[in-house]
Amino acid sequence: MDNAKRELPIKDQFILPDGMIYLDGNSLGPLPKAVEATLQTCVRDQWGQHLIKGWNLDDWMGQPMRVGNLVGRLIGAPEGSVVMGDTLSVKVYQALASALKMRPDRKVILSDSGNFPSDLYMAQGLIAQLAQGHELKIVAPEAVSAAITEDVAAVMITQVDYRTGRIHDMNAITAAAHAAGAVMIWDLAHSAGAIPVDIAASGAEFAVGCTYKYLNGGPGAPAFIYARPDIVADLSTALSGWLGHDAPFAFEASYRPAADIERMRVGTPPVLQLAALEAAMTVWGEVDMHDLRAASIALSELFIAEVEARCPALELASPRDSAQRGSQVSFRFAHGYAAIQALIAQDVIGDFRAPDIMRFGFTPLYLDSDDVRRAVDILQNVLDARLWDNPAFQAVSRVT
Amino acid sequence: MDNAKRELPIKDQFILPDGMIYLDGNSLGPLPKAVEATLQTCVRDQWGQHLIKGWNLDDWMGQPMRVGNLVGRLIGAPEGSVVMGDTLSVKVYQALASALKMRPDRKVILSDSGNFPSDLYMAQGLIAQLAQGHELKIVAPEAVSAAITEDVAAVMITQVDYRTGRIHDMNAITAAAHAAGAVMIWDLAHSAGAIPVDIAASGAEFAVGCTYKYLNGGPGAPAFIYARPDIVADLSTALSGWLGHDAPFAFEASYRPAADIERMRVGTPPVLQLAALEAAMTVWGEVDMHDLRAASIALSELFIAEVEARCPALELASPRDSAQRGSQVSFRFAHGYAAIQALIAQDVIGDFRAPDIMRFGFTPLYLDSDDVRRAVDILQNVLDARLWDNPAFQAVSRVT
Repeated sequence: MDNAKRELPIKDQFILPDGMIYLDGNSLGPLPKAVEATLQTCVRDQWGQHLIKGWNLDDWMGQPMRVGNLVGRLIGAPEGSVVMGDTLSVKVYQALASALKMRPDRKVILSDSGNFPSDLYMAQGLIAQLAQGHELKIVAPEAVSAAITEDVAAVMITQVDYRTGRIHDMNAITAAAHAAGAVMIWDLAHSAGAIPVDIAASGAEFAVGCTYKYLNGGPGAPAFIYARPDIVADLSTALSGWLGHDAPFAFEASYRPAADIERMRVGTPPVLQLAALEAAMTVWGEVDMHDLRAASIALSELFIAEVEARCPALELASPRDSAQRGSQVSFRFAHGYAAIQALIAQDVIGDFRAPDIMRFGFTPLYLDSDDVRRAVDILQNVLDARLWDNPAFQAVSRVT
Repeated sequence: MDNAKRELPIKDQFILPDGMIYLDGNSLGPLPKAVEATLQTCVRDQWGQHLIKGWNLDDWMGQPMRVGNLVGRLIGAPEGSVVMGDTLSVKVYQALASALKMRPDRKVILSDSGNFPSDLYMAQGLIAQLAQGHELKIVAPEAVSAAITEDVAAVMITQVDYRTGRIHDMNAITAAAHAAGAVMIWDLAHSAGAIPVDIAASGAEFAVGCTYKYLNGGPGAPAFIYARPDIVADLSTALSGWLGHDAPFAFEASYRPAADIERMRVGTPPVLQLAALEAAMTVWGEVDMHDLRAASIALSELFIAEVEARCPALELASPRDSAQRGSQVSFRFAHGYAAIQALIAQDVIGDFRAPDIMRFGFTPLYLDSDDVRRAVDILQNVLDARLWDNPAFQAVSRVT
């Protein structure tokens, strides 16, 4: 990567449709310019011309660790401690299954009501599978630390709330988990590429996350998993696939895990998705995470001030203190669903989360203060003109 | 799909490097011509211009079922009974975990020594995770039916042996499993797109497979899973991810599985890989599986006859009876590793499987009898000239 840092935004690194103000990078990042050529090379020159030899000539087999190192730099993970693959839900399952094996005498998985539902569902599925009397205990976000009692095997928390953007204190909760003898798992889905993270400094055992949001890896980009290097050699692996084997191509009869984080690999890596993601990661060579955070806060504060001044029907759902807030701002509005559809119809792209959350992501890689002001102009018009009252906007079906 | 069938091969549907004879489609299929434009559209026009709206406008969310139906037609699965996602190892785990829950009083998973190691590893990982006294029993391929006793919960078999191409009798083994009250899981990795399969007629509960071999979906293409429609609504789901939920975007607190095969979905689908695969599947509209099978047998028989006449050092490792053999032919040779490298250096692409298997796939989509004869010419030269004795070929490192 190029180490020369540039002022933000770096809009010229992205394809952005003319006229669109994209406030949904917290759901799916836009297309980095580098992706198309890289993916074409991967398809035409590698798969097309090298065929099976691509595994060696183009080091497809090394992609999961190579890209893992690029992600690791953004979350404070040492070289060789992060590997890519599968989906975030699968990575949650792997981390949780390993964590429970580390604390066989404890039966509680602690999470909070701000966690993304799929994390909770994966825990429920694991518990049902094990049938060993485990329990998923879900508390309010502010009650997490106090709820970490000595029966807790694993604390599984998403750092940044997907609805409100509220940030958990990573170091404090990890310390509380460790004080009680629990294993700590952080989901960084809304953190990686959004806020500075130092997972190594936190001391947490596991972190997982996705790469199609702030890392702009594209729809269906693979997930990542980090395990603390001092524990990785002893971790049990529920999903003990051949590519997590110490010698996958020896085709031994019994599973024998790799000594390092590669034991969290499962099956064949998604080469095309990883090629797209690897190209997308090149933008980060120009970015200092602390500069990015400062720019994100400036955009978010501007948005809150403008909305509160001009759109009184909307109630701030995110923390007012920017230090407690990720790279998104959410407002509650009873007609939020239709209002978001009306905004989208005017090319201001935000999204909606039930029951009444209008969600806006602020990604300083490709947004500036003019974008924010124009978005509020259009939002104000939607509200003043009651466009949300249009049945067409109420009826739009959206899946994300 | 176009229903007009064409004579095989249909080489014009594929990109094949000049001069290469590709006998490794059983490991990674070549690039279908339709892929590049489709993938470019998915990246440039869908992700690039629609961004988050692609989930709706381009029906990314429907890809796993839409492509699943295309795969289903090739394996005799009814519409709506196959879904795409994850890797084959993960799909093996899901099927096996569900199967064990169907037979809670039984503790044996039966497989055979011809199974692909990752399937066995996944079973080992599941057993260790459950800690409920399950046992993986591995017998010789020919001993499977006799070993299906009334303590067997699940029979997990790969239909076509990845080393020798030996085919198991799907109907007979499934009947034996059911007679003993066991659940049947078929791995169709080397079957789908290689031989006619009628999974519905077999009555098996589950089938899984990959799509980067004979289905030409590209490196890292996702896996598929089939569950028999009459049992799917009662299946437990170990990997209970949000996209297997009956209402993923309701963000309910508790997991509630979809009523159909979509409950086997886990996380966000790999949209780019699925777009490539969907384009690759268009070639099958021109192909009748019984025509393909006849052509495959003709090519394989020619290869065996030519090799046995001209390369006496090689010993047939595949069944001699074509009815017992998939779409590959394997020979044993003590210097097989270096001999394969010498062949590859002359653009005849086969592969090696320890300890001494030289493996050649015959895919009549893009191979004809001239290709087979030329491949044997070069193989004969490698052997007659003892090119395998060259230390350079002995030292080549290959991962697949």
